[in-house]
Amino acid sequence: MRCAIAKNNQNEIVEKIVSLAKRRGFVFQSSEIYGGLNGCWDYGPLGVELLNNIKCEWWKSMTYREDVEGLDASILMHQKVWVASGHVENFTDPMVDCKQCKSRFRLDTLSELVSDKNKEKALREVNPSLLENEGSLEDKFTAALEDAGTAVKLLGLINCPQCGSKGTFTSPRKFNLMFKTFVGPVESEDNVVYLRPETAQGIYVNFLNVLNSSRQKLPFGIAQIGKAFRNEINTKNFLFRTREFEQMEMQYFVKPGTDKKNYDEWKERRIGWFKSLGMTPDKLRFHDHPAEKLAHYAKEATDIEYQFPFGWGEIEGIHNRTDFDLTRHQQFSGKSQLYFDDETKEKYIPFIIETSAGASRSFMAFFIDAYYEEEVRGEMRSVLKFHPKLAPIKAAIFPLVNKDGMPEIAQKIEEDLRPFLKVFYDDKGAIGRRYRRMDEAGTPFCVTVDTQTLQDQTVTVRDRDSMEQVRVSSSELLNFFRDKLK
Amino acid sequence: MRCAIAKNNQNEIVEKIVSLAKRRGFVFQSSEIYGGLNGCWDYGPLGVELLNNIKCEWWKSMTYREDVEGLDASILMHQKVWVASGHVENFTDPMVDCKQCKSRFRLDTLSELVSDKNKEKALREVNPSLLENEGSLEDKFTAALEDAGTAVKLLGLINCPQCGSKGTFTSPRKFNLMFKTFVGPVESEDNVVYLRPETAQGIYVNFLNVLNSSRQKLPFGIAQIGKAFRNEINTKNFLFRTREFEQMEMQYFVKPGTDKKNYDEWKERRIGWFKSLGMTPDKLRFHDHPAEKLAHYAKEATDIEYQFPFGWGEIEGIHNRTDFDLTRHQQFSGKSQLYFDDETKEKYIPFIIETSAGASRSFMAFFIDAYYEEEVRGEMRSVLKFHPKLAPIKAAIFPLVNKDGMPEIAQKIEEDLRPFLKVFYDDKGAIGRRYRRMDEAGTPFCVTVDTQTLQDQTVTVRDRDSMEQVRVSSSELLNFFRDKLK
Repeated sequence: MRCAIAKNNQNEIVEKIVSLAKRRGFVFQSSEIYGGLNGCWDYGPLGVELLNNIKCEWWKSMTYREDVEGLDASILMHQKVWVASGHVENFTDPMVDCKQCKSRFRLDTLSELVSDKNKEKALREVNPSLLENEGSLEDKFTAALEDAGTAVKLLGLINCPQCGSKGTFTSPRKFNLMFKTFVGPVESEDNVVYLRPETAQGIYVNFLNVLNSSRQKLPFGIAQIGKAFRNEINTKNFLFRTREFEQMEMQYFVKPGTDKKNYDEWKERRIGWFKSLGMTPDKLRFHDHPAEKLAHYAKEATDIEYQFPFGWGEIEGIHNRTDFDLTRHQQFSGKSQLYFDDETKEKYIPFIIETSAGASRSFMAFFIDAYYEEEVRGEMRSVLKFHPKLAPIKAAIFPLVNKDGMPEIAQKIEEDLRPFLKVFYDDKGAIGRRYRRMDEAGTPFCVTVDTQTLQDQTVTVRDRDSMEQVRVSSSELLNFFRDKLK
Repeated sequence: MRCAIAKNNQNEIVEKIVSLAKRRGFVFQSSEIYGGLNGCWDYGPLGVELLNNIKCEWWKSMTYREDVEGLDASILMHQKVWVASGHVENFTDPMVDCKQCKSRFRLDTLSELVSDKNKEKALREVNPSLLENEGSLEDKFTAALEDAGTAVKLLGLINCPQCGSKGTFTSPRKFNLMFKTFVGPVESEDNVVYLRPETAQGIYVNFLNVLNSSRQKLPFGIAQIGKAFRNEINTKNFLFRTREFEQMEMQYFVKPGTDKKNYDEWKERRIGWFKSLGMTPDKLRFHDHPAEKLAHYAKEATDIEYQFPFGWGEIEGIHNRTDFDLTRHQQFSGKSQLYFDDETKEKYIPFIIETSAGASRSFMAFFIDAYYEEEVRGEMRSVLKFHPKLAPIKAAIFPLVNKDGMPEIAQKIEEDLRPFLKVFYDDKGAIGRRYRRMDEAGTPFCVTVDTQTLQDQTVTVRDRDSMEQVRVSSSELLNFFRDKLK
């Protein structure tokens, strides 16, 4: 039945998802009544439960291990952290301004905005051989802009996409993607702080604090879930590229020489985690970074990608970061980050294997992956087939009719389950409509109190995916659900 | 045995707590290796568990109700939200600058920094009757500064506490406590965004989104946990006044006229929540705000205060905010915030009862409240008597000795419990020392595998508070703990 979706237009699916997300209270636009704030989203009643369940499963899979400790570092950190990490210098996009109208553009997306005629003419004028490169005209233009000298010449020959003026662009300048603010009342350079663009550095600077307080030995990891912020120029694809987002990161500290082995093990563990929570295996893959495209700190790197309707997109990165991070922090802080190895009596700086998942992106992938449209007895149903552990509501409880003592029994069942599970009571409308509403919310089980309940205290439990019903003794319901949620 | 602490110097207790917090991995200073960032703290391995448990209990107590929905709104919001809320205009502290040395001071704390002689002389010169007011010299000076005209005169007569110059102060100016940054590459007024100084507004602007997607009817609430930021000039008392902190807020929307009843009910429920998790009842009280000191939006307000070593301090505020918030957002957004009452066919703007707890402050109160020093057989022990639901580690598992198959049995027990509970395995040092380490971590139960285990598969379970031991069949341990954690 999946094919019903595959045939649809891909944009249409994202639109449907965004619309369902709003209508059913999964995700709202931030500050919507004020026209919205681009790149920021709010999680509604069902969304916050799904997000919390994803985070909780990740947290348990990470910290319910002997060799991983948890951490929750602050979002605001000392500015030197970001000097040491390289973000102050390197976390930048090249930008150009139009001197005429003051509009600002990201250099690598300028090509999309300039007319084909203008692009071709400019390339020909600078150097006709540039037109012989591979790819579309847009690709050729973007590639040509990568060379600083050529970029300046080209910028002198194109029109500003905003005001139409020609030759009014500044030279490209670096724009830092960190949000900057000031602590204390004085806005001086000394008082600059940044909103963290990643949670990883909060872990690195606490390496010794965690080591000393937890009495761990290598190899061990530190796990953290938290918000991060990037002042993206172009936000896109719903929750995929946003300015405010949440990360789930685990940094695993290992003895140099054992890094390759640990890297390989964590790769498998992490892709296995997504699959264990029901994500379609065929829509998951590794994208290994080729050696020539590795970040400056990485010896080896891969992305776990999910096949979104708009294409494959990264939902987690796994990196062998070597001893880069701790060496830099040792250098900039003047505090030794050496680890003393009890067994070999050596001192060294550990290597770090990083597993960095997006909580927001995982949310989007689990959400899209769970979405099905199916024909049931001549009618279409939209259903979110979440793994029961991730489902926002675990069980809905319905009285078949609003009389004969059924509401009272149903309410009693709801009350008994409520301290242990997120449950939902509904007595409005035909039973079929109530099922459909719960299908759309992704509720795996619907409990109905009917006439037979009045005689033998059993209820029907309807399975969301198979739509099959079984009778369960009402006193056994909690155990029944606990078993399903194991 | 509590008295052992009561006799101590109060500052000494806070120092002990901060030191224990660091040593055992509850709380570290943010960016410590770079000298720290004032007003920001990181939660270590045990701290993050305690904090998560507090948040989880709050979340369950709030959203496992039929009438409360959850939400997780973004930290960055549209700037107009804060114009409507009044924060842009009113969330300020008056500040003065020294024109000579450029130092900046908060007007209401300047008195502490100026010498008594200087204060007395200045007051006498401006108006000798000012010296006849009630309170200490410091109080008299601070009170005199509250009058704008008098303040200017006094500021002309005192010396700058930093450079000693006289008459070099500017007039008091308002300093906004919101952290400000810019979205997008251009730092213009249009692109200003603030880090939210409270989570409440994220709830108010989503009132209709939640109402429409959840099909709730009045009265109902929206609950949210999240970070907030205030650019405090003076941070103090460990986690009590910080620049980055976490809130647990529930806003309850009610029909006008039923506000008093709901306010009273939530007051009782909320103080009951702290008590239900073991906080000492005698150290909790309400501090009702007198009518003349109510905030501009409030009809009635109270603080739940905890008796910290440094005095009574607010850990939660409960406010009857009337229809102020939704009326303002209707006015500034142009979007109707009216609720249509199905029963009476009326339209009105709901009143809001706010329950606003500090997660960070609750953490500190639970932490301090749990701390005991006790004499046990001639030796002192430090123990954190957390409620089992809040304890970071639920159970520790020890082999009595590292031989005779005991480690293998203990490890098997640990493995079996680990998927369900946060457990800790320890085989280092004498059993007494292992107990003490777990006392200090607040672990309520210690399981020991001993010689008898080899014969009858029972283990000892030692209770942290009573230090009594019972024998439990190892196959029954999970049920034993589940029962204790209910």
